[in-house]
Amino acid sequence: MPKRTHIAKSNKDSAIEIGAALWASPDTRTRDRERKRYAVILTAARAFRERGYHNTSIDDVARALNVTKPTIYHYVSNKEQLLFECFRAGLKEIMEAFDEVKASDATARQRLATVMCRYAEAMTSEFGWCMVQAENQDLSTGMSKKVRALKSEIDHGIRQLIKEGTLDGSIRKCDAKITAFAVAGAMNWIAYWYRSSDSLTATEVANRFIELFLLGLQPR
Amino acid sequence: MPKRTHIAKSNKDSAIEIGAALWASPDTRTRDRERKRYAVILTAARAFRERGYHNTSIDDVARALNVTKPTIYHYVSNKEQLLFECFRAGLKEIMEAFDEVKASDATARQRLATVMCRYAEAMTSEFGWCMVQAENQDLSTGMSKKVRALKSEIDHGIRQLIKEGTLDGSIRKCDAKITAFAVAGAMNWIAYWYRSSDSLTATEVANRFIELFLLGLQPR
Repeated sequence: MPKRTHIAKSNKDSAIEIGAALWASPDTRTRDRERKRYAVILTAARAFRERGYHNTSIDDVARALNVTKPTIYHYVSNKEQLLFECFRAGLKEIMEAFDEVKASDATARQRLATVMCRYAEAMTSEFGWCMVQAENQDLSTGMSKKVRALKSEIDHGIRQLIKEGTLDGSIRKCDAKITAFAVAGAMNWIAYWYRSSDSLTATEVANRFIELFLLGLQPR
Repeated sequence: MPKRTHIAKSNKDSAIEIGAALWASPDTRTRDRERKRYAVILTAARAFRERGYHNTSIDDVARALNVTKPTIYHYVSNKEQLLFECFRAGLKEIMEAFDEVKASDATARQRLATVMCRYAEAMTSEFGWCMVQAENQDLSTGMSKKVRALKSEIDHGIRQLIKEGTLDGSIRKCDAKITAFAVAGAMNWIAYWYRSSDSLTATEVANRFIELFLLGLQPR
């Protein structure tokens, strides 16, 4: 009997193991799906940056991951959607930074510096290229609108912090719109020149940018 | 006799007029060719910006000018060359600014401000789009190299002024390479957002940018 129990137990354990391998728990399944989805987007972002959007096919992305084309279509409906997801993955970092500083009681200048740091880091990431190049790829009208709307959200977030800074006295009186464009422009351009092989880390680039924008070039 | 002289004179005058109309003087011919060449480049720059490089044909440019396609080929050998000329027309403004400040005995900070002003103006010009987009258009290797070489010249010019500024004391000690990238990035980005219908003129945008980069956001 004890042996039987043991066998029964053992069979059950083994079934659970097999089940776990074949049908992951809902939590694991969600996590697994998220991980796979991220791998698809990351691989696409690399391919787009290296070969250009128009020279990259869904097939190329599938081949790089050693999966079939339908597997990719499981995560995105077309190539444009894939580019959009790359764009959004980079933007997410910046959006999260805005959310984080919302609760902070630091000065607006300090909050802006935090956002700038995360912005610079996003631009040095694998998604940087897609973030600045998405709009230049002859997107459909609907997709183009979505990209512009998200970009505009970031732009308005920066303007808002600058305006708050001129009110709390942490930022010199200035044209918030033009200043936000200058900051975003400098940040966005990082994606054009930064290579992960650069001698500076993303954080080091971010800190130099923040110092420049906060202190200016004229000695104090 | 007086009458005959008069007729002769009159005939001569008239021939000169006809000659002048049909065979312009070498000076006029050169000026005329330059004017026509500029019209071709300007029309192409507008078309590239409005429709995108890949969606614009030499035919489109010819049609816009109401001339034949061979007329365009009189000035450039192909569409890529046309884009390059647009790129170069914008860059010329910045190159000239560097030449101008070379002879000046102003501080490096003031010389940098002069270059930044002309840089911003170039980016708000009809050529701004081509200046930042040229490199993204799947250019041939040779053309890509030429574009990058010219961009690099501008980049090194800015770095040089920053370095000189840290030596003459007019610029705070900073990382010249990263600072030059930030300045150029902010400037280049103007081409993405500036519209000639904007409430600010090119010079007003330039002055706000210069103030930001020189004074910084932190109150002094």
